Amino acid sequence: MQNFTFCNPTKILFGKGRIQDLAREIPAGQRVLVTYGGGSAQANGTLDEVRGALGHAQVAEFGGIEPNPSYETLMGAVKLARESGTEFLLAVGGGSVMDGTKFIAAAVPYAGEDPWDLVVRKAPVKAALPFGTVLTLPATGSEMNSGAVITRKSLGTKLPFGSPLLFPRFSVLDPCKTFTLPPRQIGNGVVDAFVHTLEQYLTYPADAPMQDEFSEGILRTLVRVGPKTLADPGDYDARAAFVWAATLALNGLIGAGVPQDWATHMIGHELTALHGLDHAQSLAVVLPSMLEERLEAKRAKLEQYARRVWGLDSASGAIEATRAFFESLGVRTRLKDYGVGAEAIPALLAALEAHGMTALGERRDVTLDVSRRVLERAL
Amino acid sequence: MQNFTFCNPTKILFGKGRIQDLAREIPAGQRVLVTYGGGSAQANGTLDEVRGALGHAQVAEFGGIEPNPSYETLMGAVKLARESGTEFLLAVGGGSVMDGTKFIAAAVPYAGEDPWDLVVRKAPVKAALPFGTVLTLPATGSEMNSGAVITRKSLGTKLPFGSPLLFPRFSVLDPCKTFTLPPRQIGNGVVDAFVHTLEQYLTYPADAPMQDEFSEGILRTLVRVGPKTLADPGDYDARAAFVWAATLALNGLIGAGVPQDWATHMIGHELTALHGLDHAQSLAVVLPSMLEERLEAKRAKLEQYARRVWGLDSASGAIEATRAFFESLGVRTRLKDYGVGAEAIPALLAALEAHGMTALGERRDVTLDVSRRVLERAL
Repeated sequence: MQNFTFCNPTKILFGKGRIQDLAREIPAGQRVLVTYGGGSAQANGTLDEVRGALGHAQVAEFGGIEPNPSYETLMGAVKLARESGTEFLLAVGGGSVMDGTKFIAAAVPYAGEDPWDLVVRKAPVKAALPFGTVLTLPATGSEMNSGAVITRKSLGTKLPFGSPLLFPRFSVLDPCKTFTLPPRQIGNGVVDAFVHTLEQYLTYPADAPMQDEFSEGILRTLVRVGPKTLADPGDYDARAAFVWAATLALNGLIGAGVPQDWATHMIGHELTALHGLDHAQSLAVVLPSMLEERLEAKRAKLEQYARRVWGLDSASGAIEATRAFFESLGVRTRLKDYGVGAEAIPALLAALEAHGMTALGERRDVTLDVSRRVLERAL
Repeated sequence: MQNFTFCNPTKILFGKGRIQDLAREIPAGQRVLVTYGGGSAQANGTLDEVRGALGHAQVAEFGGIEPNPSYETLMGAVKLARESGTEFLLAVGGGSVMDGTKFIAAAVPYAGEDPWDLVVRKAPVKAALPFGTVLTLPATGSEMNSGAVITRKSLGTKLPFGSPLLFPRFSVLDPCKTFTLPPRQIGNGVVDAFVHTLEQYLTYPADAPMQDEFSEGILRTLVRVGPKTLADPGDYDARAAFVWAATLALNGLIGAGVPQDWATHMIGHELTALHGLDHAQSLAVVLPSMLEERLEAKRAKLEQYARRVWGLDSASGAIEATRAFFESLGVRTRLKDYGVGAEAIPALLAALEAHGMTALGERRDVTLDVSRRVLERAL
């Protein structure tokens, strides 16, 4: 096991009716800015329930945070928060709203000229507004971690950022609030959580049996409950298991003390930025091809994954099972399924190079040449 | 899955050489009281390493905290901390030193007449000194939870207490600092962590697949690495896996959202208080008999435990495997192994009754009569 530091102070309020406990978690008298996305939190009543739970607190609102939250949109919230003297942020939504709110939290007190420097120049986050979340879409794990991914539309750029100051103070996880999600978002969410887990697990053996066991437990749970919760959105127990698995997939625990990969994510980000694939679609396209391309380097863990997650005895069988699992969830795994052809590859590689993504993976040996072969396999 | 609230803010510093990072975790200029147990932390050099890492901080020390830390001893530390204006406590030791330090942390600022009321009357902990830990004995999980068990020798009483204010601010887990432990303490530690996990897992099915998977992962890891780390104390990877498994066994995560048992612990506490068994010895005696006695009530989970942890197909087989596992670690599982006979049972039951332990277990159906049958089976 590698040395590690682990600290995750986010308070999880899990279960039915937990929005009612919101008000107790926000210091009395603070000016709150509620952030949300498109119309769904409004349409399905979650936003009204949040407003009711906040009672007589001083509440402003900022809606319209889009999937792949953009600097351009978020700076509007930063302006509003500064002008209104916001003291606490409350994100109501999925990964995009939560990620966007992390950027707002860091940007509001940022003393430099342009908060974009927090993302592109990794300017240190020296202060952040406190914030909580009300989860409406299980997928990204943003509800219990300190990272975010922010897009700058004008540059076609999608980049990760984060800080230990950006853990949510609390997150409300009520599975019932996700019942009205369309199948596409549930399928995407299962793939997202699955790939998060694989990025931290499917590397090389590191004498970390607890981390392996926990990762395999998340993967098996997603394989079991993913199709079930897609088929029957109102099955509370299946949805609750999925919600909790997705949170545990990226809260720092399974990745502590082990090598991590993330090459699939970095290539996927460029597919989203340049071709508009959903985040999970980009992962479903890149991951199986990445595993095929790196089969020898990952053989030991791939064979463990095959045995323990799929009950199979071959690495290539496990890769095929993974691809079939994604397809069974309605998430297509080929570039052509999204209308992207071989002619797109040079620009994707140029974007990777421009973003410094030229030595990816747990051994930093995923060069641009390897990424090219991965994309060619994915056609 | 049941509704739950989960929050664990303890920062874990895991791995070789992490004592060197201590000083950064304690606010500069604070008066520190280092607490420890018998001579082993001194003899094996850990205490000197801690002193060195603290550098020029104002440090007082309180040693002599015994196994099953007693109110009588701990009140000496409370007096010293009050007189010396202690601002931060640092526990260097195993579960007893860490538990004792939690009592000291709560007792120092306690405004009532006698801090024993925190334990016996469950007087609310309204404030606590901040504290960190340096782990020297993997077993109890106290390094990453907010609970403690305190003994009052003069009354022959051993009782749990805790508060959300009693999480360590940080815990240093360097597996190397446990290499010099005698086999008895390693065997005990594996049993302790194993039974902690079973108390949270082996109840009735609760549609909580993630919690089941994580619990089973801890149990399988202890089955695999327990004998290995006992046989070869200097095997870093095996010891590291054991240390991390023991911490994860009782940090609140696997118990969130599921029913919990703890009947074995409550009966075990009386055995320790009245007959001086080590904590783990008391659990090794009570647990297999408890499972035999409650086989029907626990059948569904016992069969799952049999399949997934032992690769067996019967509940009774899993119970026998559990007993054999404890014995293989050098921890005996019969009362007679400790010189305790049938004549001791009435006093043990009287103690349970005096402490209100008359309806234990996940369904509160472990009456005194059931406890009597469990003890009779354990003879």
